[in-house]
Amino acid sequence: MRIGNLTIVGVGLIGGSIGLAAKRRGLAERVIGVGRQMRTLENARDLGAIDEGSLDVPDAVRAAELAVFCTPVDQIVGQVLAAAPGCAAGTLLTDAGSTKAVIVRSLEGRLPDGVAFVGSHPLAGSEKRGSEHAAEDLFEGRLTIVTRTPQTGPEALDRTMAFWRSLGAQVRVMDPEAHDQTLAVTSHLPHLVAAALAGLLPAELQSLTATGFRDTTRVAAGDPALWTAIFAQNRGAVLAALDRLEDRLERFRAALRADDQKGLHDLLSEAKRVRDALGS
Amino acid sequence: MRIGNLTIVGVGLIGGSIGLAAKRRGLAERVIGVGRQMRTLENARDLGAIDEGSLDVPDAVRAAELAVFCTPVDQIVGQVLAAAPGCAAGTLLTDAGSTKAVIVRSLEGRLPDGVAFVGSHPLAGSEKRGSEHAAEDLFEGRLTIVTRTPQTGPEALDRTMAFWRSLGAQVRVMDPEAHDQTLAVTSHLPHLVAAALAGLLPAELQSLTATGFRDTTRVAAGDPALWTAIFAQNRGAVLAALDRLEDRLERFRAALRADDQKGLHDLLSEAKRVRDALGS
Repeated sequence: MRIGNLTIVGVGLIGGSIGLAAKRRGLAERVIGVGRQMRTLENARDLGAIDEGSLDVPDAVRAAELAVFCTPVDQIVGQVLAAAPGCAAGTLLTDAGSTKAVIVRSLEGRLPDGVAFVGSHPLAGSEKRGSEHAAEDLFEGRLTIVTRTPQTGPEALDRTMAFWRSLGAQVRVMDPEAHDQTLAVTSHLPHLVAAALAGLLPAELQSLTATGFRDTTRVAAGDPALWTAIFAQNRGAVLAALDRLEDRLERFRAALRADDQKGLHDLLSEAKRVRDALGS
Repeated sequence: MRIGNLTIVGVGLIGGSIGLAAKRRGLAERVIGVGRQMRTLENARDLGAIDEGSLDVPDAVRAAELAVFCTPVDQIVGQVLAAAPGCAAGTLLTDAGSTKAVIVRSLEGRLPDGVAFVGSHPLAGSEKRGSEHAAEDLFEGRLTIVTRTPQTGPEALDRTMAFWRSLGAQVRVMDPEAHDQTLAVTSHLPHLVAAALAGLLPAELQSLTATGFRDTTRVAAGDPALWTAIFAQNRGAVLAALDRLEDRLERFRAALRADDQKGLHDLLSEAKRVRDALGS
């Protein structure tokens, strides 16, 4: 794959990493980054993540063959709707949002002829923010989910998959709702649990934590506004995932109450098998 | 501090690290490691963690000026009671167990005159096991909790504190029950939650996890038998900590159900403040 102008809306950890990877891998001739502050864009340019900066989303997207929206999930739909009317036929729009159903379904049937939006979610990133944490290998060997619905054009889907593969990612196709149900379990629930755990730690016990507490709560350092938007867009699936957690916590509680050591051992062994399978 | 013979019962990650640190820092003239298998002890000797190995706890402890029990929490009391009658007056016994009340209270009043047991818990370690993961700097700058009760002799307490400080640790004195209530929140609850989360992940979703899930569940790779014993010895405090978690999960649930984004943002912001204060 080879792109003339690639526009990245939102040049943070993910957007910056896309820019770095696209430039180092020769995917795009020119990378345009869009942000709200010139200083951020200048930093991204100095890091080699973009070639030029713009403060105007529709303007920067109009110049693109492919544009990827790496902004908070509650901003993507509005930005795409604002930018799409100015796009030439054949422009491909995608995103990197952590939720998919609200975004993809909100855009279906609302874009000009010849302009396609295909939802994407690279399973990469961290609790850190900003292009200063971007890495050209962020997507290498990692999975990116690309969404398909009955309205997704096959060529747009193929190009979206080729885009992420060109950045080093492995790609899996899912429908938006299946994505959101899956991520509720694999990402949103862990975030909620980490935040619940961090939130209950009294200040006087902070010095009495060790690596276990720090690992288990690490993602709770993520940006509250970004995560509020993610939870708000995936409330139903997160609530269902939370029910599954509560069931399992109840099994631990029952085993503890009954001093059922075999029951505890079974629960811990099952967890260890799963965790060992995930690798470090 | 300078010890003639230091005996380490259980030469795994913690015991091996004590041996490495004691030898590299010149704390002990000779380090005797006790295990159940000669092969494990030979490995520990090859790594420089011990000078000689023994399969006999009372025999190896009898030779020691100071012995530290780094075995699972449900084995420590029995091993100490078996070893103490053979010890010379002035011998100091301590441990590295993750629970303290059952161990310390079970031993009070049951040791020969002149033989002291003081409970210890270095807040170091990981989900890994075995002396091959031992590190001479494991305790450096980390906290070790040393327990004091009305029956703890001041000199034995001082020597125990000096021992851990000689290994590079910072020391805090707590009573055994306060230790257990604290660790229920800072260590045992995170382990339980990580295991609950890992345990609910269906096999088909394993490939759809990313660093967030892996960080949050990392400790669930710990040894189920070790952790069953820890939970069994600290059931009451862990159940109380679990109640606090449930309260907080309920606040998330209520905010999700009501689509209360301000409420979610407040909960996530509070968690981020705590997590940021803990450092990476």
